[in-house]
Amino acid sequence: MTPFASLIDHYKAVFFDAYGVLKNAHGLIPGVDRTIHALIQTEKPFYVLTNDASRSPEQLAESYARLGLPLVTADRIVSSGMLAREYLQLKVSHGTVAYLGTDTSAHYIENADLHALPIRDVDLNDAADITALVLLDDEGFDWNTDLNKTVNLLRQRNIPVIVANTDATYPVSGNRVAVAIGAVADMLERIVGKQFIRFGKPDAQLFMFAYDLLRERMTIGKNEILMVGDTLKSDILGGNKFGFDTALVLTGNTPAEDVDLRIKATGIIPSYVCESAAV
Amino acid sequence: MTPFASLIDHYKAVFFDAYGVLKNAHGLIPGVDRTIHALIQTEKPFYVLTNDASRSPEQLAESYARLGLPLVTADRIVSSGMLAREYLQLKVSHGTVAYLGTDTSAHYIENADLHALPIRDVDLNDAADITALVLLDDEGFDWNTDLNKTVNLLRQRNIPVIVANTDATYPVSGNRVAVAIGAVADMLERIVGKQFIRFGKPDAQLFMFAYDLLRERMTIGKNEILMVGDTLKSDILGGNKFGFDTALVLTGNTPAEDVDLRIKATGIIPSYVCESAAV
Amino acid sequence: MTPFASLIDHYKAVFFDAYGVLKNAHGLIPGVDRTIHALIQTEKPFYVLTNDASRSPEQLAESYARLGLPLVTADRIVSSGMLAREYLQLKVSHGTVAYLGTDTSAHYIENADLHALPIRDVDLNDAADITALVLLDDEGFDWNTDLNKTVNLLRQRNIPVIVANTDATYPVSGNRVAVAIGAVADMLERIVGKQFIRFGKPDAQLFMFAYDLLRERMTIGKNEILMVGDTLKSDILGGNKFGFDTALVLTGNTPAEDVDLRIKATGIIPSYVCESAAV
Amino acid sequence: MTPFASLIDHYKAVFFDAYGVLKNAHGLIPGVDRTIHALIQTEKPFYVLTNDASRSPEQLAESYARLGLPLVTADRIVSSGMLAREYLQLKVSHGTVAYLGTDTSAHYIENADLHALPIRDVDLNDAADITALVLLDDEGFDWNTDLNKTVNLLRQRNIPVIVANTDATYPVSGNRVAVAIGAVADMLERIVGKQFIRFGKPDAQLFMFAYDLLRERMTIGKNEILMVGDTLKSDILGGNKFGFDTALVLTGNTPAEDVDLRIKATGIIPSYVCESAAV
Repeated sequence: MTPFASLIDHYKAVFFDAYGVLKNAHGLIPGVDRTIHALIQTEKPFYVLTNDASRSPEQLAESYARLGLPLVTADRIVSSGMLAREYLQLKVSHGTVAYLGTDTSAHYIENADLHALPIRDVDLNDAADITALVLLDDEGFDWNTDLNKTVNLLRQRNIPVIVANTDATYPVSGNRVAVAIGAVADMLERIVGKQFIRFGKPDAQLFMFAYDLLRERMTIGKNEILMVGDTLKSDILGGNKFGFDTALVLTGNTPAEDVDLRIKATGIIPSYVCESAAV
Repeated sequence: MTPFASLIDHYKAVFFDAYGVLKNAHGLIPGVDRTIHALIQTEKPFYVLTNDASRSPEQLAESYARLGLPLVTADRIVSSGMLAREYLQLKVSHGTVAYLGTDTSAHYIENADLHALPIRDVDLNDAADITALVLLDDEGFDWNTDLNKTVNLLRQRNIPVIVANTDATYPVSGNRVAVAIGAVADMLERIVGKQFIRFGKPDAQLFMFAYDLLRERMTIGKNEILMVGDTLKSDILGGNKFGFDTALVLTGNTPAEDVDLRIKATGIIPSYVCESAAV
Repeated sequence: MTPFASLIDHYKAVFFDAYGVLKNAHGLIPGVDRTIHALIQTEKPFYVLTNDASRSPEQLAESYARLGLPLVTADRIVSSGMLAREYLQLKVSHGTVAYLGTDTSAHYIENADLHALPIRDVDLNDAADITALVLLDDEGFDWNTDLNKTVNLLRQRNIPVIVANTDATYPVSGNRVAVAIGAVADMLERIVGKQFIRFGKPDAQLFMFAYDLLRERMTIGKNEILMVGDTLKSDILGGNKFGFDTALVLTGNTPAEDVDLRIKATGIIPSYVCESAAV
Repeated sequence: MTPFASLIDHYKAVFFDAYGVLKNAHGLIPGVDRTIHALIQTEKPFYVLTNDASRSPEQLAESYARLGLPLVTADRIVSSGMLAREYLQLKVSHGTVAYLGTDTSAHYIENADLHALPIRDVDLNDAADITALVLLDDEGFDWNTDLNKTVNLLRQRNIPVIVANTDATYPVSGNRVAVAIGAVADMLERIVGKQFIRFGKPDAQLFMFAYDLLRERMTIGKNEILMVGDTLKSDILGGNKFGFDTALVLTGNTPAEDVDLRIKATGIIPSYVCESAAV
């Protein structure tokens, strides 16, 4: 168990997962505000890397401000939704993009100058102008009606399907979780037998996006960056694979009593284990 | 392509899949009433084997009567729900059995002398008396609320989970399909990481159940039974594996233009291919 | 933890897994000879259900005799190889059956009155007479050469592939294991994209085969049979699903210190946990 | 069907897959030497992206020289082995790295200043100094003995496992294929239940490595790069996801008669389909 405070001095930049590291259902994780302040004061760059496409970076930043952490500004946030937007900008030049998700999640489509249409408003008898489907969030639609409609859309239209959140579940309160759009995407993919395009940790592309932002500001190597996360299968696996050092914190998905067992069972080995990201 | 009429003389008994073989969204498949009549007149036993736990055999038989085929009586029907019921009778002796499905599907639980409780009525703070969970049908519950509740129930209670329909989709009308409870079960199983118990074709246990019923009436070998189905991955794969001869009919899931390609792609080889089960 | 001696009085018949229950790398599990004697003396039927197609039942019985347990005779043994043989008898009437496995494993093909040809002797340029492929055992062939040849055979011939052992590994000595043909079959199946036919626990068909043998001798219900095994994912899952009561013993794949954790992690719940099958 | 010659004018750089695009079992694909010459003459940068860790870039370049294409120099080649090497350099600072592969493939370990030890020379009773395992190539080891040894090594040592080639098969001659180390890795991963780290198309990291090399030389956006490949599931899926335009050529894994069907079946849609990469 390594004290987090002793760690960050050894790195030129720090990447944080959001949920379970900076905040949880009850608000900010105690002490992480001190960590963020310390990074700002020492001018050490940091980014928040999140598998969350439910809201724009600006809206995510507002939620940190409301929690008392206005220093996590929109330009510090790299969300899987931003990768979906980049894909749409580069690869889908025209037409209507159908989506599953909240109205605020549709921001990532509209920002790519495309017309966003919720699945509930898709007319299966007049779907020829739909050029892509994006799975953004688990909320904002009727699961039964709209998932059935999605399956039928994909049976009749051979279009790219982008999944902007690879998580299977997310914590809601107490010990409870909710099914995330990543698990729904897996179900749909198996049903229609086609290959979806997934963005989000542990996939390398989210790490690359943040790494590229950082390299625009400074010269830095992968070994000078610390990735901090609470989840072995996304934050730590992805961070390790990308070449970063990784710190597993015990304030979210990985309880202290299970940490040794899970590292052994999964073979996903963090560089460090820390009680929390607080200094 | 073999004429179905020439086939059935060579077998002492015939097992039929229901949907896509005897009926479809528009009613009876033309000519199968003649087939059923011929089997009755020649006193050749037949059973209908169906991955359908939404209704009791009696209710399923009523639906055939309404379509003009009263000869498909309840005692001719073997449903995956009956295997779920047998499991509950043998293995779950007491307590409350939670379920996802329609009210009529709960019949299979109540028939096992157990208390059936829809997931929507489960109180997660008072769930100690729940001894099993059965996934019966895709209808009868709110997908978002109740699937989230199911995941949390399975995180706190280590109980057997029985899936009474292994299909991923079912046809609804025209070329459209709906997501079946089998696909939902796959999603839940991956999320909670536990091993569910599945009943339904291609699993051997449904074939065995029908074969046992038949052997109570007569002496018969597996090679004297013809399994007739429209789906390679359930009817034909399961029938082949159990040791039956198999006939693929082209009135349901397998269109005539795709049949050769699908047999080659899957390696699931029916003994015969017939236009339909009509004589 | 239930004493095994107290259990068997409550059942009319007992089914045993072989490896890890009756024997291990060092010989007989201490005390199981007393159990077998007691069953014989009380005329309580028992069968050994094994995912082992490397040798004929007669050869397996000889191995028990050599270990000092001649009472486990060939007619007491139900092997997954016997199901492969039944499949070949019912479904493959002619031609040459290619196989991966030892020479002794080919017994199951020859017993079905078919010509058995090891993959090494298959000529890919003259393979039109090959009507099926059976994966019997991990020994008896060169893995590199013969697995490559198998992939190419399956790319050119659309034939049924039968897997006569579903295990991924088997224990060899000390704490070491060897890769079993079941894991190799999974690899080949994913490579060629076709659906193989698998026999062996936890699949219902092996349990049914033994249950049928038993019912030829006596009238008995599923709830009067105890399945005893050391492996949750094959013996216990399969036994539970078939409707038997199940006893997990701690003399093989499941060490005492892991038993609670594994039951919780897998959701596979035995009726009883016993130290061993010794009385 | 788009003529390849008309395409390359629209892009500032071109990335090629190797096998099935530039060469095959018979030598160079006819006309690709003209393509490479044209790119050199117009000073348009190109890279060869290959899931091949069997040899160093220098040795791969030599093989192009022998085929009459000396312009494909080592600095033009980005192999999945180079990503494995980068991982070892960044994440494995000391100790002995065990490997499966040819002696030449071990170059990628030695180049990271680590001690490379073939699995056959590993002593399972003295394995405490082994800090990682790399799966490099399907040749250079005894499959039966060494895969069993690998499973047992991973059961006793919790170390990162790096897979330097994600392909399941590779073409050998005529219509035949051989099993690649990627398929073997999948088998081992399922057996030991741990999470391996995979490098190679379609994973984003190989594309990023080449893109970074290119950006060191020039300012270029993702949409100014064309990825050319013969395989939907690696070259085209990965290229699309990374944001490149993609051209599927029909000189390798995708025969002309299957192209429409496969695009429809997989949902992987190239920007262009070209007969070959020849101009």
